[in-house]
Amino acid sequence: MRRFLDLADFSRDEILDVLTLAQRLQDHPEPQALAGKILGLVFLNPSLRTLASFQAGMAKLGGSSFVITPGQGTWQLETGMNATMDGAAAEHIREGIPVLASYCDALGVRAFADGKDLAADMNETLFRMIDELCDKPLINLESARGHPCQALADWRTLDQERVPRRAKFVLSWVYHPRALPLAVPAATLQMAAMRGMEVVVLRPDGFALPSELMARARAAAGMSGGEVSETADRGAALRGAHVVYAKEWGSTRHYGDADGDARLRAGLTDWCVRESWFDAAQPAARLMHCLPVRRNVAVADEVLDGTRAVVRREAFNRLVVQMAVLHRMLA
Amino acid sequence: MRRFLDLADFSRDEILDVLTLAQRLQDHPEPQALAGKILGLVFLNPSLRTLASFQAGMAKLGGSSFVITPGQGTWQLETGMNATMDGAAAEHIREGIPVLASYCDALGVRAFADGKDLAADMNETLFRMIDELCDKPLINLESARGHPCQALADWRTLDQERVPRRAKFVLSWVYHPRALPLAVPAATLQMAAMRGMEVVVLRPDGFALPSELMARARAAAGMSGGEVSETADRGAALRGAHVVYAKEWGSTRHYGDADGDARLRAGLTDWCVRESWFDAAQPAARLMHCLPVRRNVAVADEVLDGTRAVVRREAFNRLVVQMAVLHRMLA
Amino acid sequence: MRRFLDLADFSRDEILDVLTLAQRLQDHPEPQALAGKILGLVFLNPSLRTLASFQAGMAKLGGSSFVITPGQGTWQLETGMNATMDGAAAEHIREGIPVLASYCDALGVRAFADGKDLAADMNETLFRMIDELCDKPLINLESARGHPCQALADWRTLDQERVPRRAKFVLSWVYHPRALPLAVPAATLQMAAMRGMEVVVLRPDGFALPSELMARARAAAGMSGGEVSETADRGAALRGAHVVYAKEWGSTRHYGDADGDARLRAGLTDWCVRESWFDAAQPAARLMHCLPVRRNVAVADEVLDGTRAVVRREAFNRLVVQMAVLHRMLA
Repeated sequence: MRRFLDLADFSRDEILDVLTLAQRLQDHPEPQALAGKILGLVFLNPSLRTLASFQAGMAKLGGSSFVITPGQGTWQLETGMNATMDGAAAEHIREGIPVLASYCDALGVRAFADGKDLAADMNETLFRMIDELCDKPLINLESARGHPCQALADWRTLDQERVPRRAKFVLSWVYHPRALPLAVPAATLQMAAMRGMEVVVLRPDGFALPSELMARARAAAGMSGGEVSETADRGAALRGAHVVYAKEWGSTRHYGDADGDARLRAGLTDWCVRESWFDAAQPAARLMHCLPVRRNVAVADEVLDGTRAVVRREAFNRLVVQMAVLHRMLA
Repeated sequence: MRRFLDLADFSRDEILDVLTLAQRLQDHPEPQALAGKILGLVFLNPSLRTLASFQAGMAKLGGSSFVITPGQGTWQLETGMNATMDGAAAEHIREGIPVLASYCDALGVRAFADGKDLAADMNETLFRMIDELCDKPLINLESARGHPCQALADWRTLDQERVPRRAKFVLSWVYHPRALPLAVPAATLQMAAMRGMEVVVLRPDGFALPSELMARARAAAGMSGGEVSETADRGAALRGAHVVYAKEWGSTRHYGDADGDARLRAGLTDWCVRESWFDAAQPAARLMHCLPVRRNVAVADEVLDGTRAVVRREAFNRLVVQMAVLHRMLA
Repeated sequence: MRRFLDLADFSRDEILDVLTLAQRLQDHPEPQALAGKILGLVFLNPSLRTLASFQAGMAKLGGSSFVITPGQGTWQLETGMNATMDGAAAEHIREGIPVLASYCDALGVRAFADGKDLAADMNETLFRMIDELCDKPLINLESARGHPCQALADWRTLDQERVPRRAKFVLSWVYHPRALPLAVPAATLQMAAMRGMEVVVLRPDGFALPSELMARARAAAGMSGGEVSETADRGAALRGAHVVYAKEWGSTRHYGDADGDARLRAGLTDWCVRESWFDAAQPAARLMHCLPVRRNVAVADEVLDGTRAVVRREAFNRLVVQMAVLHRMLA
């Protein structure tokens, strides 16, 4: 494996293979598998789980890692093509990425959406550039449209929780004080569709996911025996749900327009998952969230501290599945 | 050992055992003792010695570590129970701590006092929460009321400097431009009392240490054959002193009241340790300080650059004793 | 080797020996050469290549490293002698450096020029202090007047590119929005002179390098069979050039005077290397730059993206030559 950029780049069977490898490495640790190997980690945006779990994962496999965080001890990196660099950024990714790649055996990069131009973000304009610049194995640590490590960890979590393949999976928009990127909803939608689930995207008016993401997921569902629909009707969506996957994202109607987005979300503060959301769900329905989660804003304490929440398991699974990806790339 | 949170949690003999192990690891290095083990380090507040010495210590024992610094490449962490998280913090320690703990074999956390409510800080409200959230071995890297790694390093330093057990140990308040936490004075007081020393807490009016700390130290002194007193009389305190341990801390009379504290300390800039402080002390009296120290504000160059100062030895001993703690926890 | 502070501290043969070792370690990796060894890295100024390549280099040799970045998770360090530390800095390098040195087997320190007093900076006032405070092997990661790791990497790059020893090497000032330090031009000048090249320093009026640097380079050229000259005539300088080494630096005429420097550089925005600069150069002339480089400000895209640019090779060579230095110091 030379690239781990998007779950959609792999077949369902390839994903299942990686999950099998993840389990094998859990059962039979290989503390020297990546001895002498070096992972470079570049964070153009903040991180907690990704930063810690990739460093820990490399160490558990006998390798090591270094971390570069532009703006934190390293200057800002410019990403615009043909930029006249007379502003804050002192270095261009056209130098930064290949140079860092030359120091390691694989590179992980986090680069969020620009958040201004929906088409450019959905086209992964920035990450495609990074991809071209990197001649070493490359891992997407979250890009404009993808977060495959999270999606893979969530898939494993669903399996561990014995959520049936054809169960009802509700990806629900939840409130956040400001617009957040589409990477996790995009990755989650694709993951659940590839797994073969009955996926319902629940979101208020103005927050529909881009039609190309919906179409891509529908195609994947067609291959896997799943189904994909969307609605703004919370009651209908939650009825019989096996899983509620809560996620914050920005308005696609007002993409890049902070004021328009703010006006629209101002009236949506009741989109905070409470126990009452599960009244008509399956009795043992799970609450999933990729973290970080704003308590009592996106999800209430009563849910996060109850038995439905599997968010810590999802987070731990980041470590487990990423070790499989690293093993596949570097062992 | 599953917890290293406060010297007061251990018996005198248990402490002596750890110090013996520290010496053994110095004499007979064990470069593979912690092979494959991972230490997670979380800094809610800045660090230099702790950050460097724990990473170096894990490496010297064959293990590895990762560092998370909320606010520096990682978002701020919320610590309030039942908080409605609509502010700057994107993640709660109720998720952050257990998730990070799941990535490592032991977790070290630095979380300073809130500095507003003395009772809450002296009760370790925050660190008790962290303690409950962490199901892996946990090390206190400095909390509201404790800094056991520093206290242990200082104990070893006193032994190495051949300071007699029953020597006069003066814990002296010194000037600082603003209020600092009580963690180091609390830990130092307890350490010297447990070691069996004649402890004098020297502090200006308004800076008395909390009575529960004094009572706890008196109880420890009762067990170890030591003694604990306090005074604002500098001349009396320093007379015959074997050790002057300089430390800055905030006014307990005006705890949480920056203006009140500032008014009180404005007249105390002469509480900067100078050579003249030692005129009536033992001829070979030592100057100790946990570092960082503001030169010519808390301690004068003439003292720090002279032969009394053992501050570098104290700092080096951080590495040595922490390796023993890690070994006890993880080997 | 206990110190790697300046190429000028070594003979030409000693440098060639280190370059030979670098090649040997490339051809025959020694993944356990520095097992158990720890490198401490202290960055008083930002870094990308140095931070990543030293961590990667230690890992490739079996050792490990820790990073301290004052101001980023660690408080600011005071550097002034006899300072009354009532400002932002909480710790003095007089404590910080020896303490950090005590935690590792070798220390690397980056400490840029103060930029106010040319004589003090050219005298390496700060780095000499650091040198005295460090009782472990010490590596200069860029100081006021030196960047020996970069110079060594550049020497190797010239060899690999088969640039003849006596070729014409033009160190050319290029535009930057504000004054940058003299460390890289100083180190590059000395390196090219020691290598035996025909060195031309091309710079606009007001940007002449300090006479002591020029004299030092001339002396080195005398030993190596090279030559050193300077000019403001771009056409003359570039005629027949084998190498153009582009670098930004501040006005020496207005050193420490930001306004004077700004007025002088305002008219110099055409000092951006374009393909036309090479019209009268050798057909295969190379463009070198230490990075980071501001595209279309210091060097145009057409040059950086063309075949002349060897900047990525220079950056990769940082890793290679630094491993040789570490090996020489610690193996």
